[in-house]
Amino acid sequence: MSDSRLDNGWFREEDQSWPGYSISLKVEKILFQGKSEFQDILVFHSTTFGVVLVLNGIIQCTERDEFTYQEMIAHLPLNVHPNPQKVLVIGGGDGGVVREVLKYESVQNVVLCEIDQKVIDVSQKFLPTMASCLDNPRVTIHVGDGIAYVKDHLSEFDVIITDAPDPIGVAEGLYEKAFYQDMKNALKPDGVMCCQGETPWFDLPLIKRMLTDCRSIFPCVAYAVGNTPTYTGGLMGYMLCSSDLKAKLKQPLRNFTDEQLRRMNLRYYSPEMHVASFTLPLHIRETVGDVLDT
Amino acid sequence: MSDSRLDNGWFREEDQSWPGYSISLKVEKILFQGKSEFQDILVFHSTTFGVVLVLNGIIQCTERDEFTYQEMIAHLPLNVHPNPQKVLVIGGGDGGVVREVLKYESVQNVVLCEIDQKVIDVSQKFLPTMASCLDNPRVTIHVGDGIAYVKDHLSEFDVIITDAPDPIGVAEGLYEKAFYQDMKNALKPDGVMCCQGETPWFDLPLIKRMLTDCRSIFPCVAYAVGNTPTYTGGLMGYMLCSSDLKAKLKQPLRNFTDEQLRRMNLRYYSPEMHVASFTLPLHIRETVGDVLDT
Repeated sequence: MSDSRLDNGWFREEDQSWPGYSISLKVEKILFQGKSEFQDILVFHSTTFGVVLVLNGIIQCTERDEFTYQEMIAHLPLNVHPNPQKVLVIGGGDGGVVREVLKYESVQNVVLCEIDQKVIDVSQKFLPTMASCLDNPRVTIHVGDGIAYVKDHLSEFDVIITDAPDPIGVAEGLYEKAFYQDMKNALKPDGVMCCQGETPWFDLPLIKRMLTDCRSIFPCVAYAVGNTPTYTGGLMGYMLCSSDLKAKLKQPLRNFTDEQLRRMNLRYYSPEMHVASFTLPLHIRETVGDVLDT
Repeated sequence: MSDSRLDNGWFREEDQSWPGYSISLKVEKILFQGKSEFQDILVFHSTTFGVVLVLNGIIQCTERDEFTYQEMIAHLPLNVHPNPQKVLVIGGGDGGVVREVLKYESVQNVVLCEIDQKVIDVSQKFLPTMASCLDNPRVTIHVGDGIAYVKDHLSEFDVIITDAPDPIGVAEGLYEKAFYQDMKNALKPDGVMCCQGETPWFDLPLIKRMLTDCRSIFPCVAYAVGNTPTYTGGLMGYMLCSSDLKAKLKQPLRNFTDEQLRRMNLRYYSPEMHVASFTLPLHIRETVGDVLDT
C-alpha cells in the first residue's frame, strides 16, 4: 500500500510495489486534495514538473513528462492498425490518451470509459492541456466500470487502450485474464489493444503473468518500454496485443517525418522510437522472453 | 550544490542540477561515511538495491543496477573498435568499467586513472563485484589527475572512457573542451572515446555544449541513452566520439548471441540495444540534433 506523503514542501511517493525506492517532487502549491467515491485525489503544482495528478498516493502524470507516456500508449497500437476508426480508452480520465488518439484523422469516435467522474473534473480544471480534448465532438464520455463496458460491446472497436493505474483497489480487475478475453471480444477481428505494462525493475512477475495470460488469448503479443522520469525507475512498459495473426506489432505502418511529428506535436513517439522500444535488455528477456518468442 | 541527506532511515538525493526532483533509497545499514582529500564518501547497504556508493551526496552506483551503466559506457566504444588492446579509464575507481573492459580478450592493458585512492579502497572493501577486477594482472592503477594524465600520453590508447561524476568540483575539468582535445591526442588515429553524457531531462544545455565541443574536435560524434533507475530521471546519456572519419559509431562490430551475452554476463548491453540506444526522441533531438546530424 502507498505510504506517500506531503512533507517539508515535497510530495514523496512510496509504495510497497517498489520497496526501498521513492521519487519526490517539490511542491509549489496544492491545487486540490480530496476523496472521490473510488480514491484519494491530489493535484499540485510542482516547482519543475508543472501540474501533477496523484491518485491513491501514486503519481499518474505531470505536465512536463506526460507526453512520453500518452504518446507511447496511444501511438504504439494506433500506428500498427491500418485504419483505426473506433477507439475505446479505459481509464485515462485525464484526457491525455484521448488527445493522442484524436491526432488520427481516420478516428471517427473515441469512447472514454472512466470510472471516476472526479478525475475528469479535476483534470478539466487543472490539466487543460490534457483534458480539454474531452470536449471534442468525436469524443463520447462514459462514466462507469471498464470491465462491465467491454463485456457489453462485441466486435466494435479497432483499438482498445487500457490506461490503468497500478493493480491496486479499483484497477485490480483490469489486470485479470477474464478482462483481456473480454477486450478481445470487444475488438474487431483485426483489432489491436495496448495496456499499461508496469515497470520492469519492480514488477517482472506481474508483467510475466500479464503477458502469459494475453498470450493464451491473442495470437500476437509484444512488450515495449519507454522512459518517463516520474514513473518508478524511469521505465514504463507497454503490452501490445493483436487479434490478427498477421499483425506486425513492432513495425509502424506510418513513417511520420520529423515535420509531421512536429505538426502532430509528437515529442517522444516516432516510427524509429516505435521500433527501438521493443528492444529489451537480457535482464528483462530472461524473465519474459519465452512468453514473447514462442 | 547537493542537499542530499540521511533521514528517517532513507538516503535522499537532492541537487541543484535536477531541481524539484529527488530519488530516495531506503537504508539498511551505513557501511562507511567519511571525507577524502577530494570529496564526501558514503557507502550504505540499501534494503532493495544492495550496496550503494554516494560521492558528494550523489548516487554513483548501486549493486542492483550498476550493470546498466557500466555495460553501456564500456561496450558502446569497445564494440565499435575492431581491435581494442590498450584502454584508459578515467575516474571509475569503483572498478565497474574496468570489469567490463576486461571482457574483451584483445585488451592487453587497462589503465585506471582515478584521482581518489579512497574511492578505490572503499569499493574494494564494500563493492567486490565491481572492484575485485582491479587485482587483474592486465590492470594498471594510476592514482592521479586524469587531465594531467591524458596530456602526458600521446597516440597511445585504442579506447578512452571517462567515467566521471557530474561536473561539480573535482570533475569539472573533465567536461571542458581542452580535455576533449587532450583525449583525442592520447588516442591512436582510429581511437574511440566514450564519456558519461549526463541526463537529458535536466542537462540538455550542458549536453549540447559537450557535443558541440567534441564536434569541433572529432570527425564522428554520437549520443546514446539508456535506462538506469537510480540516476535522475532514469535516463543516462553516453557521448561517443571517434578520431576515425569512417567510424560507424551506431553499428556494433561484434554480434554477440544471447548465449555469448550470458557467458560475458551482459544483462543490459547487446548489439540490438547498441543500435536502439541511439534513437532519441524529438524533445531531445530538437536541442542537440543539429550537432549530431551535421
